[in-house]
Amino acid sequence: MNSKILGGIVPPLVTPLLSRDHLDVEGLENLIEHTLSGGVHGLFLLGTTGEGPSLSHRLRREVIELACRQVAGRVPIVVAVTDTSLPELLELAHFSAEQGAAGVVLAPPYYFGAGQAELIEFVEDVLAELHVPLVLYNMPALTKIKFDIATVRRLAQYDNIVGIKDSSGDMNYFHNLLRAARPGWSVMMGSETLMAEAVLFGADGGVCGGANVAPSLFVELFEAARNLNIEQVHTLQSRVIELGERLYSVGSYDSSGIKGIKGALACLNIGNGNTAEPFHSFGERERAQLRKALLDLQLLPITSALPAPLPLNGNNGNSR
Amino acid sequence: MNSKILGGIVPPLVTPLLSRDHLDVEGLENLIEHTLSGGVHGLFLLGTTGEGPSLSHRLRREVIELACRQVAGRVPIVVAVTDTSLPELLELAHFSAEQGAAGVVLAPPYYFGAGQAELIEFVEDVLAELHVPLVLYNMPALTKIKFDIATVRRLAQYDNIVGIKDSSGDMNYFHNLLRAARPGWSVMMGSETLMAEAVLFGADGGVCGGANVAPSLFVELFEAARNLNIEQVHTLQSRVIELGERLYSVGSYDSSGIKGIKGALACLNIGNGNTAEPFHSFGERERAQLRKALLDLQLLPITSALPAPLPLNGNNGNSR
Amino acid sequence: MNSKILGGIVPPLVTPLLSRDHLDVEGLENLIEHTLSGGVHGLFLLGTTGEGPSLSHRLRREVIELACRQVAGRVPIVVAVTDTSLPELLELAHFSAEQGAAGVVLAPPYYFGAGQAELIEFVEDVLAELHVPLVLYNMPALTKIKFDIATVRRLAQYDNIVGIKDSSGDMNYFHNLLRAARPGWSVMMGSETLMAEAVLFGADGGVCGGANVAPSLFVELFEAARNLNIEQVHTLQSRVIELGERLYSVGSYDSSGIKGIKGALACLNIGNGNTAEPFHSFGERERAQLRKALLDLQLLPITSALPAPLPLNGNNGNSR
Amino acid sequence: MNSKILGGIVPPLVTPLLSRDHLDVEGLENLIEHTLSGGVHGLFLLGTTGEGPSLSHRLRREVIELACRQVAGRVPIVVAVTDTSLPELLELAHFSAEQGAAGVVLAPPYYFGAGQAELIEFVEDVLAELHVPLVLYNMPALTKIKFDIATVRRLAQYDNIVGIKDSSGDMNYFHNLLRAARPGWSVMMGSETLMAEAVLFGADGGVCGGANVAPSLFVELFEAARNLNIEQVHTLQSRVIELGERLYSVGSYDSSGIKGIKGALACLNIGNGNTAEPFHSFGERERAQLRKALLDLQLLPITSALPAPLPLNGNNGNSR
Repeated sequence: MNSKILGGIVPPLVTPLLSRDHLDVEGLENLIEHTLSGGVHGLFLLGTTGEGPSLSHRLRREVIELACRQVAGRVPIVVAVTDTSLPELLELAHFSAEQGAAGVVLAPPYYFGAGQAELIEFVEDVLAELHVPLVLYNMPALTKIKFDIATVRRLAQYDNIVGIKDSSGDMNYFHNLLRAARPGWSVMMGSETLMAEAVLFGADGGVCGGANVAPSLFVELFEAARNLNIEQVHTLQSRVIELGERLYSVGSYDSSGIKGIKGALACLNIGNGNTAEPFHSFGERERAQLRKALLDLQLLPITSALPAPLPLNGNNGNSR
Repeated sequence: MNSKILGGIVPPLVTPLLSRDHLDVEGLENLIEHTLSGGVHGLFLLGTTGEGPSLSHRLRREVIELACRQVAGRVPIVVAVTDTSLPELLELAHFSAEQGAAGVVLAPPYYFGAGQAELIEFVEDVLAELHVPLVLYNMPALTKIKFDIATVRRLAQYDNIVGIKDSSGDMNYFHNLLRAARPGWSVMMGSETLMAEAVLFGADGGVCGGANVAPSLFVELFEAARNLNIEQVHTLQSRVIELGERLYSVGSYDSSGIKGIKGALACLNIGNGNTAEPFHSFGERERAQLRKALLDLQLLPITSALPAPLPLNGNNGNSR
Repeated sequence: MNSKILGGIVPPLVTPLLSRDHLDVEGLENLIEHTLSGGVHGLFLLGTTGEGPSLSHRLRREVIELACRQVAGRVPIVVAVTDTSLPELLELAHFSAEQGAAGVVLAPPYYFGAGQAELIEFVEDVLAELHVPLVLYNMPALTKIKFDIATVRRLAQYDNIVGIKDSSGDMNYFHNLLRAARPGWSVMMGSETLMAEAVLFGADGGVCGGANVAPSLFVELFEAARNLNIEQVHTLQSRVIELGERLYSVGSYDSSGIKGIKGALACLNIGNGNTAEPFHSFGERERAQLRKALLDLQLLPITSALPAPLPLNGNNGNSR
Repeated sequence: MNSKILGGIVPPLVTPLLSRDHLDVEGLENLIEHTLSGGVHGLFLLGTTGEGPSLSHRLRREVIELACRQVAGRVPIVVAVTDTSLPELLELAHFSAEQGAAGVVLAPPYYFGAGQAELIEFVEDVLAELHVPLVLYNMPALTKIKFDIATVRRLAQYDNIVGIKDSSGDMNYFHNLLRAARPGWSVMMGSETLMAEAVLFGADGGVCGGANVAPSLFVELFEAARNLNIEQVHTLQSRVIELGERLYSVGSYDSSGIKGIKGALACLNIGNGNTAEPFHSFGERERAQLRKALLDLQLLPITSALPAPLPLNGNNGNSR
């Protein structure tokens, strides 16, 4: 991990919310301490799991400022600044640099479907104005276009691009990415159930949503994979898959990943589970399922096994 | 068109730019007068053709303010306020209402793929804060999700939702939309080559990108369709298809529609052709093709047939 | 319709089955007489609605032989011979020619996703062996690839290709098809709810699944559109849309179109409603819904309003 | 591998052709001996790589008969019998059983997009008539529908279903498949560049197209993965990826995988490289590239490094 910008387990932090445009400051502080105490190697702000695109620009700046101050250099922080508007994203990037972020993360603009030539020049336009290192973010399911391998090779020529996070879930693409990367690049896996095999084949680590909830589980799995300890990988990988099966399948929406993580964190007394529109927060029945799942997965301290039900906050955003 | 919010030809205005974050005020004024003098029945700001999602929020507000002042009530103005962030889109909606817009236009949030239940509640959340009528905007190619017919039926129960613009290009969907609409709704076709048949079957009009360049052609086609004058529809429809074939096929990117319209307008001395990132403006060779096309289509006054080449502005945004 | 191979209403006949590999001879004879008495202008065998790809080659030949003998030249017959295997499809094409088919119909091979260059040469390979005129069949939802407009232009140069049927449901594509077609080509609409507007804009007719059930309704709508009688088009188009809403929405599978047509025909005492695997036939509850729909649509003679329930045939194919 | 039907490396044999409907008997015999001498653990006939769907049923039977006779029980043979027509596929399945195949392989019917309920009953209908064990084949890119994990769980209850081959390329799906499989099932990876990691996580082996050309390379990689020897996996995996980069990227069509394999085999004097329509065989220029690639990859004996150019056979299928 030496001089690379990112390596190991870098949770894409969720953004705890008191209400629609009101950051849960205590929740975010608790989340940062929870993940750092689990041994994570960096933090990733305002990505997909962080619901960055759903938040106001003002609130995004508040998250960046608070997280940088709270972490105070203990681990590197990168900030997803992706936006459909270049001026808006540059403003966020400049702010991130001022606050001490180690780098900013850029997915393709996600309204217009740019071609690869336009995508390359878009990244070049961003680079020309940037004062911090840039990490690419491949997320085709949500941005519609991906970074083709040829595009990655071309962009890898710029010194100020220092890595890529791939959330395509396509291991063949990922193997090609590992071959296209420049020495010194951070190549990070964005699909948590593929992190172990990615590391076995040379990835630097993973941006794993589940590490919000169970940071040490992912750190241990990363270490096992890096040490080529396959038996231990098998054991821990099963736990990671079970975690997803139990936490991300509650409720019927596509958004169940983010809602499951936020709901599980609420069971751990980190935040209140509120999500930003267009997602809905879980109701009490679903939280009970999550609490049961956390108990079964031994992720909930016995003492909190039977907490008083969380009061439904009168002004808590979009929960219904 | 009586009491409906929209009907007839409502061009989705392009946004003339001096540079990346610098509105071309004169260009926008010229464009408004050009389209109004062509007889259009309304104006649509900051939609897909207006590159709304690519512009800074500050510049979007400048467009709204200028257009409302310039039009001064001659025709209704609607403003696309779609954004991935609910607080940001509400701010734009409030500003639009203050400036005198007749309504705001909302496509589904385009980063996270909400389900239909979440989409309905998202629209309801917007409605709860809105002080102007709302028009839905179906644009699945860019937003990934569409307004299902059942969703439209459900939303049509709200008095403050007053219409829908459909840019899916799917006439079977459109026929179902016509059946799902509430009496009093504006049902507008967003694909310009399908506007005539949509009106023949009961649509109120079209939001036609080409009407930026040739407003009277689209107005005449609309009138022919409304009067069920099929022979004239055939003649004018051919001209509309030719317009697209000649103007939107220059250059190799998916963005060629918007670039073609802006480039053609530059040939008419309206704006300089600059587009916002991630699109690229045309070079001189492509503009020459567009000029030739406009001459062939008899859309360029003879006197401007051989203008001096436009000077390449030293600071004109992202042209290359 | 003069010298063109196809024009007007050409129902894609369903294939009545006694059991999985046993043709319902009487059902097919009844269906042919039912549609001809409704005034249809041609017949289309073994297409998608005819479940051609699901039938054994032996049974397909039986259908061709029987239909050609029964029709005896009263209207032209075309036969869909599409297959993933070129030798197999040629055998079917030769057989069709021998039996007196006016032409054969070819969709792209539907297992491997050929590119356009390969598709062109595939069609050329078929042409080189063919002794009857060829009609192209665009059906991208099921074949995965479509005939690009440039491909159509290229293939239109061959005298022995005499038309195209488009089931893409994409009216912009269809308008381009009308411009790409050679004079003398039959350009047929395959989506029944778009037939009227296709004809209004120059199509020769439609291959309408619903014309199995209600042939005269489609013939009347075709005539109204050809005569540019828009008011009558509106009235009849509403009936066509209602027909689909009532007959094709029974049951929960994607296959509900074919099952709805076969089930409705069974209510008319034409065939027993059996479909070929992988589709399932309707049960009694669904047939009762179809019978009710036919009554409401006034497509069922009063005398058959309350028939005794159809006996569940012990060996009737794959009904359950 | 004990009592499982398949395990280890099972090449999906290409089908050498003299011409469109003329099997290259000597080519197939040579291919069988080439792969067996490389240590493969089974053979897979008439799958995607074997171009099964493009061949006449007569020729498919000829392949089955010849291969079973030639192999004479040295390794198990499975035969892909997938067809859009249930009667046709059953005939092929019965023939395979008679000839001594260890099992038959079934992908979803690939014309109509059946739903999961219909897919389950389709498989059950096949099972009811089958006298040999059945292996499922997941290939969503070509069949449009996949075997959902819930469907696999349901079908795993039938004793006569004994395994699944997954060619989705989706490792998250594959991990779920490993959890859904019944003890005793063969779970085989169909994407050759993912075979190693699949085996590392518990798969039984791979159906690797490249094993037609370089059987021992894949056998060695399989053994390394089974023995959890990661360093050796890395070395051999790189060779497998290079093989694909060099052999499958020649030519511009999607079909370049099959054409690359057949062309490379022709360089090894196994078959003449002909492919079945809709694919085109390579020309001399592309074969020279393949020969160079094989030399660079040390897969061509030095003595054949500079062979006389292959004569272009006057009647060799569809090469141009």
